[in-house]
Amino acid sequence: MREVAVVGIGQTRVYEHWDKSLRELAGEAALEAKAEAQVANIESIYVGNMMSGVANQQGQLGAMVADWIGERFTDSVKIESACSSGSAAFRMAYLAVASGQSDIALAVGVEKMTDSPSSEITGALATAADADWEVDHGLSFVALNALIMKRYMHEYGWQGIDFAEFAINAHANAVHNPFARFQKAISEEQFIKSTMICDPINLMDASPIGDGAAAAILVPVEMLAPNLPRIVVAGSSAATDTISVHDRKQPLWLSAAEKSSKSAYAQAGIGTEDIDVFEYHDAFTIMAALSLEANGFAQPGKGPTLAKEGAIRVDGKIPVATRGGLKARGHPVGATGMYQLVEVVQQLRGQAIGTQVPHPEFGMAQNIGGSGSNIVTHILKREN
Amino acid sequence: MREVAVVGIGQTRVYEHWDKSLRELAGEAALEAKAEAQVANIESIYVGNMMSGVANQQGQLGAMVADWIGERFTDSVKIESACSSGSAAFRMAYLAVASGQSDIALAVGVEKMTDSPSSEITGALATAADADWEVDHGLSFVALNALIMKRYMHEYGWQGIDFAEFAINAHANAVHNPFARFQKAISEEQFIKSTMICDPINLMDASPIGDGAAAAILVPVEMLAPNLPRIVVAGSSAATDTISVHDRKQPLWLSAAEKSSKSAYAQAGIGTEDIDVFEYHDAFTIMAALSLEANGFAQPGKGPTLAKEGAIRVDGKIPVATRGGLKARGHPVGATGMYQLVEVVQQLRGQAIGTQVPHPEFGMAQNIGGSGSNIVTHILKREN
Repeated sequence: MREVAVVGIGQTRVYEHWDKSLRELAGEAALEAKAEAQVANIESIYVGNMMSGVANQQGQLGAMVADWIGERFTDSVKIESACSSGSAAFRMAYLAVASGQSDIALAVGVEKMTDSPSSEITGALATAADADWEVDHGLSFVALNALIMKRYMHEYGWQGIDFAEFAINAHANAVHNPFARFQKAISEEQFIKSTMICDPINLMDASPIGDGAAAAILVPVEMLAPNLPRIVVAGSSAATDTISVHDRKQPLWLSAAEKSSKSAYAQAGIGTEDIDVFEYHDAFTIMAALSLEANGFAQPGKGPTLAKEGAIRVDGKIPVATRGGLKARGHPVGATGMYQLVEVVQQLRGQAIGTQVPHPEFGMAQNIGGSGSNIVTHILKREN
Repeated sequence: MREVAVVGIGQTRVYEHWDKSLRELAGEAALEAKAEAQVANIESIYVGNMMSGVANQQGQLGAMVADWIGERFTDSVKIESACSSGSAAFRMAYLAVASGQSDIALAVGVEKMTDSPSSEITGALATAADADWEVDHGLSFVALNALIMKRYMHEYGWQGIDFAEFAINAHANAVHNPFARFQKAISEEQFIKSTMICDPINLMDASPIGDGAAAAILVPVEMLAPNLPRIVVAGSSAATDTISVHDRKQPLWLSAAEKSSKSAYAQAGIGTEDIDVFEYHDAFTIMAALSLEANGFAQPGKGPTLAKEGAIRVDGKIPVATRGGLKARGHPVGATGMYQLVEVVQQLRGQAIGTQVPHPEFGMAQNIGGSGSNIVTHILKREN
């Protein structure tokens, strides 16, 4: 398969965009990516989206996006894998170019959540859990994560406050990101005093929903002009697990994350220690901890230790959520994976103003669907 | 890219399967295909589905299917492009194998529609239309097709009765298909007397919804045992159009069908006249007529003429809906494209008992999403 480069990126701010429709959001990000890439005809389009059928009464976003951005008649479909839909779409675009099927592919993640009734959105989010075996018993998606967090605290002896640094770091970084939903820092005191949502998850443990879109253009590496930053897809891998958490042998271990990152590391020919920046899926602080562990950055149960030591800060050993993460940049579910990838590209280009990691070579983005049931990992590499 | 063969197929009957869940339906078809293919580990799974989020409160069918059929940790996503989701999933599986990404890929289309409230299903079907510009004005999906049919009748001088043969042929063929929802013939008199749903579309112009799943296993051609029927993907192409019908220059011409079939013909190195069997997308009789025209089998406005001449029957020039089509086999929307492909494989293998076309070499399946906004065309070829 051919080597693939990311040549253009675009994003809207994650926000309550009540004045912009689904197609306008997707179009804004996609056209920005296309303009930056300076490409003519897009040959394949993959749209990552989780809940447009429920939240926006709109299906076939493939056709919707293709038409809106002036690419009518292009091959275009929607890819859905709950909250990992965005990076699943990127993976399809990568495969389309790597295989030789297309020379220019667009991946765009889009979600519009804030002008639907919140009960509808809670229901739509619950489609990421198992309808027959979890939701049917009354579990919402946050409740599922609360159960995991409670078990984790019991098993490893942590308290709620031990997760504060994940949120504080994310918010500190988002201050510098004009596309973040919450561009403000939070203190430990604010974390402690924040409202309990679903014990032990408080408001500061949880990422906010939002409206937004992010996009990237992928081309074969030989199409890149020599003066451009050469940012290639060094590893791409996806793995599934049971949707129901109770079906897993180890409910505190993200097996699909481990499987997909190991495969991505192998493709890139590197190890955990070579990753310079990691955009992880901190939908809840417990997911931040579990991600650090499953991908080899911390021992089981030691995710919070890494955070407390400052290792996850921009100047730490493994900078995470460098543009705010899901916690502060925001989590427009089906778009999130594309935001992560766009942010890794910004880091590798040296465009992460205010939170730039010094001269990163490898950046990893990992996007989690469900409570760990569909996980997509990408490693991008700057080659010049 | 590598040449790809279809090595195993499976399907459930299209029916009101109130005793089977979404995963059971998908699993039944997928495991049958896998058993027939006699393959070990599936490397990629693509699930075509339109409305599980709305109708079944279940997202990420990729993970759901992978786990249920014993392929936990496999790379698996859901593909959605409204009613063409099934063949869009097949196209992804084809690309995965053709590119060298996977040696064994599974495509499965599944939909479960009959134990949801019918108002919910009508709403879910309307997500195939444009939420902002069509549905917002009160149009349901059948109403949209009724407008197209009315215009077609006005433009070319046809009456409602002139569409009868499309339905009569489909039902006549379904008598021989144990997987069809309606395994009974209808007469012209029954067509004339059938209930008007949305003028000029009567009950016999419209395909029934249903629950069902169909699946196929794809492998590189060199993996095929020499004694097996060598059925290869000779052409695969998808094209989009505007979702809103009023945005098209020619509302009576399926431009995306023309574009995708022309590309598929070119890939296969053949012309319209070489197609021996055509599984078309007769969601409504008007779509049957428009499909025959856009793909070169009839002149504009002459689709009904072809039907009246008997050319669409099993012994005619261009046999269509040979296992009942959407009209009588049934239309479990996101699964339909996979049923079409499974039926083409049956024809090429000589397994279409009761409606076998004599020694077909090329079979075409065309799946339409929306009112022509996302169209996927495949040409399969029997090579031995």
